[in-house]
Order: sequence, then structure tokens, then C-alpha cells
Amino acid sequence: MSKSLLNSVQFPADLRKIRQQDLPQLAAELREFIINIVATKEGHLGASLGVVELTIALHYVFNTPDDILVWDVGHQAYGHKILTGRRDNFHTNRQMGGICGFPKRDESEYDAFGTGHSSTAISATLGMAIASQLTAAAGRQHIAVVGDASIASGMAFEALNHAGVTNTNLLVILNDNAIGIDPSVGSLKDYLTRVTLDNAPETDNIFEALNFKYSGPIDGHDIDVLISELKKLQQVDGPKLLHIITKKGKGLRQAEEDQVKYHAPGKFDAETGNLVKKETAHLPPKYQDVFGKTIVELAAQNEKIVGITPAMPTGSSLKYMMDAYPDRAFDVGIAEQHAVTFAAGLATQGMVVYCNIYSTFLQRAYDQLIHDVCLQNLPVIFCLDRAGIVGEDGATHHGIFDLAYLRCIPNLIIAAPSNEIELRNLLYTVQKKLEHPIAIRYPRGRGQIVDWEKSFSEIKIGEGRKLKSGSEIAVLSVGNMAYNVTEAINAISEKKLLGHYDLRFVKPLDHDLLHQVFRQYNKIVTVEDGVVKGGFGGAIAEFASENNYKNLIKIIGIGDYFPEHGSVEQLQEQAGLSPEKIREVIISLL
Amino acid sequence: MSKSLLNSVQFPADLRKIRQQDLPQLAAELREFIINIVATKEGHLGASLGVVELTIALHYVFNTPDDILVWDVGHQAYGHKILTGRRDNFHTNRQMGGICGFPKRDESEYDAFGTGHSSTAISATLGMAIASQLTAAAGRQHIAVVGDASIASGMAFEALNHAGVTNTNLLVILNDNAIGIDPSVGSLKDYLTRVTLDNAPETDNIFEALNFKYSGPIDGHDIDVLISELKKLQQVDGPKLLHIITKKGKGLRQAEEDQVKYHAPGKFDAETGNLVKKETAHLPPKYQDVFGKTIVELAAQNEKIVGITPAMPTGSSLKYMMDAYPDRAFDVGIAEQHAVTFAAGLATQGMVVYCNIYSTFLQRAYDQLIHDVCLQNLPVIFCLDRAGIVGEDGATHHGIFDLAYLRCIPNLIIAAPSNEIELRNLLYTVQKKLEHPIAIRYPRGRGQIVDWEKSFSEIKIGEGRKLKSGSEIAVLSVGNMAYNVTEAINAISEKKLLGHYDLRFVKPLDHDLLHQVFRQYNKIVTVEDGVVKGGFGGAIAEFASENNYKNLIKIIGIGDYFPEHGSVEQLQEQAGLSPEKIREVIISLL
Repeated sequence: MSKSLLNSVQFPADLRKIRQQDLPQLAAELREFIINIVATKEGHLGASLGVVELTIALHYVFNTPDDILVWDVGHQAYGHKILTGRRDNFHTNRQMGGICGFPKRDESEYDAFGTGHSSTAISATLGMAIASQLTAAAGRQHIAVVGDASIASGMAFEALNHAGVTNTNLLVILNDNAIGIDPSVGSLKDYLTRVTLDNAPETDNIFEALNFKYSGPIDGHDIDVLISELKKLQQVDGPKLLHIITKKGKGLRQAEEDQVKYHAPGKFDAETGNLVKKETAHLPPKYQDVFGKTIVELAAQNEKIVGITPAMPTGSSLKYMMDAYPDRAFDVGIAEQHAVTFAAGLATQGMVVYCNIYSTFLQRAYDQLIHDVCLQNLPVIFCLDRAGIVGEDGATHHGIFDLAYLRCIPNLIIAAPSNEIELRNLLYTVQKKLEHPIAIRYPRGRGQIVDWEKSFSEIKIGEGRKLKSGSEIAVLSVGNMAYNVTEAINAISEKKLLGHYDLRFVKPLDHDLLHQVFRQYNKIVTVEDGVVKGGFGGAIAEFASENNYKNLIKIIGIGDYFPEHGSVEQLQEQAGLSPEKIREVIISLL
Repeated sequence: MSKSLLNSVQFPADLRKIRQQDLPQLAAELREFIINIVATKEGHLGASLGVVELTIALHYVFNTPDDILVWDVGHQAYGHKILTGRRDNFHTNRQMGGICGFPKRDESEYDAFGTGHSSTAISATLGMAIASQLTAAAGRQHIAVVGDASIASGMAFEALNHAGVTNTNLLVILNDNAIGIDPSVGSLKDYLTRVTLDNAPETDNIFEALNFKYSGPIDGHDIDVLISELKKLQQVDGPKLLHIITKKGKGLRQAEEDQVKYHAPGKFDAETGNLVKKETAHLPPKYQDVFGKTIVELAAQNEKIVGITPAMPTGSSLKYMMDAYPDRAFDVGIAEQHAVTFAAGLATQGMVVYCNIYSTFLQRAYDQLIHDVCLQNLPVIFCLDRAGIVGEDGATHHGIFDLAYLRCIPNLIIAAPSNEIELRNLLYTVQKKLEHPIAIRYPRGRGQIVDWEKSFSEIKIGEGRKLKSGSEIAVLSVGNMAYNVTEAINAISEKKLLGHYDLRFVKPLDHDLLHQVFRQYNKIVTVEDGVVKGGFGGAIAEFASENNYKNLIKIIGIGDYFPEHGSVEQLQEQAGLSPEKIREVIISLL
């Protein structure tokens, strides 16, 4: 069979010319296309393979982009991108200057709403549907595709609760594959499983209780069934929910069998599906594993320790503790708000709580952090993975705001360990006796120290450290920016003039150390892997104003823009955080 | 009948000595006690009147404080406070140095978890219940009392979804009175109404779907029924939900009949229930009414305008628009996350969206603001009411972090109009053509300009203004701090040395004006009704460092602590924001 169908589709209008009986062939081609490119270029695989038939059916039945289609999270939107004008540059996916790994309004009129974080689709789509009512765009359809892990998040419920009292043309497609990145959890998931096993809607089911017209569950890999059901729903007024059952990774055996690993598998052999083995034995550890392994060690000695992750057991490496101490490690699902207040509740009873949330996702629980944890001064330990620039996941996922949004909260300690050993020792320190909540931020990916599993030693809270003496310019860094600064300094011939200090704590600042630095050096440079406005450099500027220091202060960090996707190195270069760019700033001050 | 019962109760142990048949008398006395004190001291009335019987029954049946009791939001906890050691200083409620209007851990061991913002109770209580399991406190009961408006908020759903897969001794009491501060909305509320009208649980109801054992609905004003049901549930293992029906304001006719007004009625006659009339005709308007009335005027001229409130139609005065344009004004319930992304969806379709959220509650939608609005640069207009110190509601409700947490977000404009006319003109300006999202913050309560409904004039985005020329010290203020600064300056004899500038915009800063100021004055004082760390003063310090200015900068704002409850004037004095305190700082610099 010639591979001509996919080549004939630039846009959905082309797709709609294909005979329905030929669509399974198109599905096969689309699946192969995705596999071939992701195999070499990397990216999110399993989710998009699972919705190939749905993607085709949606664009076949509905009149996109006039009819509105929003993909929740967006991991599953590769097929959508390929069928909506981006087939020929799909190979640039997630690369700097290339297309984004998530739907993005700037990129295509078919991307009706940018996504990345979970559970936003129903709210956004409802907004569009209401706008259509108000502007008398009455025939328009508004479709939100939401996974079963995402629909269990609070904001999705809020949207369903509102939508249920409207008469909008809203169609929620519940893509039920019983997995997010890790397997779905929670009682709603158990409920959906029961509904599916019965293979019939329960009377008065949970969505009908919320005033949605429920249909399904149907086989989400059967294009004919999908098309027939979607056409039926096209004629139904008011909010409706179609429950479809799909298999994540569909069409690639290994991806179906190991759905967690093939969520974003890295490079693999497109023919066999086998992962390209990387030699990692002698590499420094991932920061997430420093967390994941250390907490298991600590939990063995301290029975008060518990761990929490909102749906990221694999990504955070809390899975190690979930395996070792299943009663004391909790995956609460995509529920950051609940995770934080649940942590607060545990802390009131004297438990030592490590609540691990990606920096970008803690934004979801900002109020709970302020109101439930810090106001009550409960000593919860927040481990903020993926802090700073995260690379290819791009604008929705960079953890660059945390220092700014955390710094204003009373009672909260903010730490940014500069390497794996510092992180390990800090994790050790805080479980002993902690009088305040603390946020420990660390980056995505690997550190630089292979031999990191040393015996523990304590770090004094609020104490910075001198990495190098100097006389003219003091460079103050936080977190792993210490490496870039060290590299920058080493590339400068007058390096004996340059001091370098690892502040370790953004709050409380080490005032003794800072007074010493401000007295000893005329010029101060601050370096942080976060936004300049309100961040660490801002804290140093505030310190200077508070103490009437007149030193020149140069703040290096991310400017007032949203960095896009690209490699960490490229994005650091762009932000002025690469060793070379830091070097240039220092030299300009000499 | 002598009023002896309430006097005999200092703590729940005393309550448990009373014969069950005498408890209705205690309820009557407790209700009268609450009415008498709130009538003169003000506070939240209706919610506590509605749970008098429940409060007594809970402390009667359960062994508080060993059994854990958490009141969601906490408006309804007055009876609880009175029965748990705080009867004799209940008259200090909400006053500086007095007891807090909400449950507070510092205040009593019976306040197991501090509340104020909605929908946190189930998460916190579940954390405590899990801790009890881990520490083998097996017999302990854990009770969360949640209203029907609060349980519809996303985080409550997240907690139910988690709790449903545990086997904890968790009892959720759904206090269903069909109202929060304003009447409840949404399809869950409609569902609960159906369940109640049937007066029997539906088979497979929504809570049972989430694996809770459901009982009810029962009459929440019948103490015997309550006690009998609670005793039954005491013996039931695992998560369970008791649905009780109550009337907000129960026992005071006017409070039952006008539940919105008697939520927090101000002073009233304890005998008749009549409100103490205040002469307001010649007072300056409340800022909320400047918003509420102006948006109606604007909506009449611009059909693209829509308004959104998450459950605060009365408090935000969006009710004016809801009355005038019911199709274009949306109360989405206690659902800040949904409100913001719903706004984003509307904005993609060219609607002009005014999303009105109290400053402290926008913390609930921080991620949605970053990820759904600002990253996509959608020109949503956020109106942040109750910004700055709010007074008697206290630590949970001050809107003091917004400048700090907003300033780091790219694309977002931040405005703080200094008076009612400025607010009015800004509301007018932004509906014409706005290229970015904007947050407009304004305080609780009344302004100072009686004659504010002038014809509209445009304000240039990013442009500050000079209020007074000077030569030595420039005072830069934002928002209504302009008044305090003006007063401070007028009380200083060398006032001709003092310049005063109303920046109007915290972002973008008016760089032209700032360069002028930094060149003209040696000393700069900044004044803001928000936290110092990362706030407006921090922005000025960053500006100085960016431009190598060496001027002395003195930042006046709220220090690194959570202000408690008290009058706005008291709390401003404490924070150093009163005219007198500002005057002292200025004089110390002269």
C-alpha cells in the first residue's frame, strides 16, 4: 500500500476529502510518522500514539479551526500538529526556533488555546463557547480533550460545575487510558474503571449528576465508531461528555507495555521500539535521584518522614520511597493544591513531610503555600524539582518564577543548593529539627559530581559560603549557577580580583557574609537561574538600600520575557546565564 | 428558664456533662450570646447561627480536641470558639490583640487547623487522619465541616478524590444551606438540591461514586437527630460524608430572610434584628462600587465587555452588572482557577473581560494567571479588590503579596490607582484597546472623593504623575498610600523640600519620570501597602542598580511578617504606613 494519504494532508480540509474507509490507513501512516520522528528527535510519544484515531476523527467531523479544539496538557497533540500544517517541520519539534512540543496559539490558528499544565482545557473551552453565544456564533462547536488523570484535578471539576449550568455547545472528550505520566490514582479513576468494566454508563453517573449528557464508553481506536458518535453529538445541544477508552502508546508494542517509560522515551529504534541504551553508570546523578535516593535513606532512620508527589512519582523519583515505604509515600494525583494542604495537615501532627513539586507546578498551590503552610509556620519541606530553565519542554514548564514568588512569603526559608552533595546534606539537615517551612529548589537533569553519596553533614540554615576570595568584584550566585560562574571566572585572566560566594539561601540571606562582601568589594554581581524582577538579585539590591551601601550592583538573571523551548545551554546563552555571557559582564566591570 | 447552661461551659468537657434533653436550651443560649455580641461588635453572623446545633452535637459526641475538628473557611466557628475556652473574651473578636475571627492554631488546641480561605478542610483533615494511621492513633476521629459552596471548589474535589482511596477515619460533614456569602451556584449545587428534595440519597450518588459512605440528608437543626447520626458514624470505618441541611442565619428572622446582608451585617439591634442605619449618602464611595457602577456604564457602550466573579457578586459589586446584563456577568462559584482560565478563553475570542478577584484570592489562581493569561498575552483585565491591609478579617485575608507575586510575570501590567477617579478612568481606559493583561489593585472600603462620577478621561498606560514638587527628598507612592503620604508631608515644616510622585503603575515603571526623580533628588522614599520583599520598593531598588544610581533609597512597606487582625489604621500604624510613621521616616532623612 503506497504511503500517499498522509502526504496528501497539509490541513484538515485535505483530510476531509479522504474516504472514511481509508482513514485507518491514514491512522497507520500518521502513527508511523510520529514514531519515526520521535525515535530520533525525542519527545512525548505514548500520549500521541494513543489518540491517533481520535485526532483524525475530530478533524474529519468538525470544521476546525472554526470549530474549536483544545487539547488538555498537550502531550497528545503531535498528530494534531502534523495534520494542521506542521507535518513538514515536525522534525523541529521542541528544538530552539522549531515548533513547540505543546499546542501554542502563536504557532497555528488550529491551536485554539496553548496548554502544558494540566486541566485547563474545559475552562478555556467554556470561555470560548460562552463568547460564541454572546457573539451569536451559534453553530460553532467547542471541544476539549481531557485525559482521565487531568479531569481529576480540581480546576477541571470547577469547570464542569460551571459548564453544567450553561447551555453551551461544549463537548468534553474524556480520553480514558488510566494513566497520566504515571498510572492514574484516586477514587474517580476507580469509578471510571467500574463504569468501563460494566461497559455501560451507570444510571445517574457522576457526569450526569453535573448535568452533562454522558455517552460512552466507546473504543477510542475504532475510527468508524468515533466518527459516528461525534456526528451524533454534533447534533446535541448543551454540555456533553464522551467517554472514550484508549491505550497509551497504541501501535508500538513496547510503548503499550511500558507506558511510563515510553511517555517520553528519549531516542529509540523506530523499527524494533527498543530504547537506545545510554551509558549512565559513570555519569553524575540526576538531581531528582539525589532526592529520591536520599529520602529513602533518611526514611529508614526517621519514621516520621513521609513523602508526597502530585502525580510525578517517576519524574520526581519519589517512586523509590513509594517502593520502599508504600505507607509513607503518597501520589495524590494531579492535585498540587491538595498536596500542599495535605502536607500541612500531616505536619500539624509532627510528621516530617517532604512535598516534592516541580517548581512550575507549585504555582498551582501558591495560596495553599501561603495560607495553609507559611501563615501557620508549619515546617513542611518543599522540594522544587525542575527549577530554573528546563529546556525542551519550553515556556509552560520553566521553573523561573519561584525565587520571586516565594521570597515575599513570611516564615519561608528558601534554599538553592549548588550541587548534589549540598542538596543531599540539606535534605538531611531539614529532617532533624526545622522551625519553619522550607523550599529547596534544584534543577532538571544531571549534576556534576559522580561520587555524591557521602556520609551526611549538617548545613547551617541561612549560612552562605565563600567559594573563592577576591578584591574587586564579588560574584554572588545561587544554586547550580555556581558552576557557570566558576567557569566564567576561570576564563578571566584577572581572576584573582574576583571573589565568588555561594549564598545557598535566598532567604534568610546571610547578612554577616553580605556585610563582609559589601565592605570588601566595590562591585557586586549576582547570578540566578530565575527572573530578575523580584528575585535573588532584587533581594541583594534591597539589602543594599536597607543598609545604605552604594556599591555597584549588577543583576544577572532572566529578563522580563517567557523563554521558549530549546536546550538548556541555548536558553541560558539567550538569557545571559552561560559561562561566556557571565564572563562578558564581569570583564565589562573590570 | 435560667440562663445557666452556657455559663457552665468553659470547655467541651463541661458540655458533655449536660443532659442531652437540655441541649436545645444550650443552643438557644449560645445563639443569643452570639447575636448579642455580634450585634455590637460586628462580625460574621449568619454562618455561625446556622451551625449552633451542629457545633454542640459535634463537641458532645466527639472527644475534642483529641478527636480533630476542622471548620472550612471558619466563618461559622463562633459557636465553636465560645464552647472551647473563648466565651469570656469573645467580645474581643476581630479586634487588635483580641481573638481572631477565624479558627487559628495559635489561639486554641481546639482549632486544629487555621482557616479563612475556602475548601482547605478536607485536605488538612485527611493529612491528620493519615498521620493518625502512621502513628497508630487508631481510634481518633477526624472531622471536616464544609459548606456546599466550598465543597464545589476544586481543591475540595481533589481531597475527596484522594480520601476515597484511603481507609482513614475521615468524616466530612457537608453543611448544605445553599449559600456561601452569596447563593451557591453550579451544577453540583443543583444536584444537591435534587437529592434534598427527594429527601433520600440517590442510588450511587456522587459521593458514593468517590467511595465515601454517604448518609443524609438530615435536619441540621435537630440536635437529637444529629447526635444519633454522629454516634452511628463514629462506629463506621473509612471515609464517610454526612449531608446535613441547615438554614443560614437560623434563629434571627431578618438573618434568615436576607442571608446575604446578614452574612456580616455590621451593627444591628439584637432584639429586633434591625440593622443600625448608617448615613452613607454623603460619604465617598466604596472602591468596590466604583468598580461595580463603572463597569455597568462601560458595558452599556461596549458590548464586548463581560464580567466574572468567583463567588463574590456582592463583595465585588459585580452584582450591579449581573442585574443589568445577566448574560454578560458570571458568578462562577468559589473557583478562582476556573475563573481565570475561563476569562482567558473569553479573551481569545475578542471579549473584553473584567475578572474581579480579591487580591488574597488571586493567590488561588496564580498558575492560571501565568500559564493561561500572561504567557499567551491575553488582555484580560484583573480587578483586585481588597488589596493591601484589609483590617478585621486579618492574616488570612490581607492582600499584601500581590505586587511581589505579580511583578515577576512577563507581559502583565500592574496598576494601583490612587483614588476613585483614577480607578474609574483606568477601568475606562483599558476597555478601549489593551495589548496586555493588566492587574488593577484597589483597597477595601471607602475612598475620599464624594463627587467621583466625572466624565471619563484616558490614562496613559505606564505613566506616573507628579503630585508635588520638591528638591531634597522624593516620595514615590502607589495606590491610595498617596493620601497617607500627602498627610505626612503636610505635617512637616520643611515641606517645600519634599517631592511626591504617584507612580500609578508598578509595571511598567515610568522610566522617564524615575530618571528625572533620581537626578533631581538625593534621597528617595517609596511607600506601598504591600510587603517590602520583592514589591514596589524592590522594583525601584532594581531600577537604581540597573542604572547605577547611588541615591539613598528608603523602602516603606510591610515587613516580613503576617499582619494579624485589627483596624486598618492600627495595622498601618504597626506596619509603619500611617501618616505619622511615614512622617517620622521622612524627617529622619532631612
